[in-house]
Amino acid sequence: MKVRILVSLKPSVLDPQGQVVKNALHTLGYQTVKDVRQGKIFEIELENTDRQVVEKLVPEMADKVLANPIIENFTWEIIEG
Amino acid sequence: MKVRILVSLKPSVLDPQGQVVKNALHTLGYQTVKDVRQGKIFEIELENTDRQVVEKLVPEMADKVLANPIIENFTWEIIEG
Repeated sequence: MKVRILVSLKPSVLDPQGQVVKNALHTLGYQTVKDVRQGKIFEIELENTDRQVVEKLVPEMADKVLANPIIENFTWEIIEG
Repeated sequence: MKVRILVSLKPSVLDPQGQVVKNALHTLGYQTVKDVRQGKIFEIELENTDRQVVEKLVPEMADKVLANPIIENFTWEIIEG
């Protein structure tokens, strides 16, 4: 089974990387860009294919390793199998 | 209008960051993890709400700034508006 976890900064947290990207886009003439927020994706392949187990495991892994729950939120979905 | 662009390494490109995350998960006992690939998300808010314009702009911005087309692929979707 394959899952995708999206990790993004909470809305109240400043995102300097996103600001840099926004400035780069403005410099290139993309004035229509109002805001950019950058985050991370993890695509994880699991041997386990029991949906119930996966639904317990993935949020646990996200909380412990993939995201920093103080400043980041995550969402996840099964993308294969 | 808000769009989300997912940038990930091409399958043939090594992903050392993903390997480190995989090893961390194994160390914590998540032996069910077979593979981890890490990528980036950009959530971009646009002033422009003309779908046709946005469909031209977003891939252009991704090619020029957000992704390195030699080693990365991107997909994108409209998530708001």
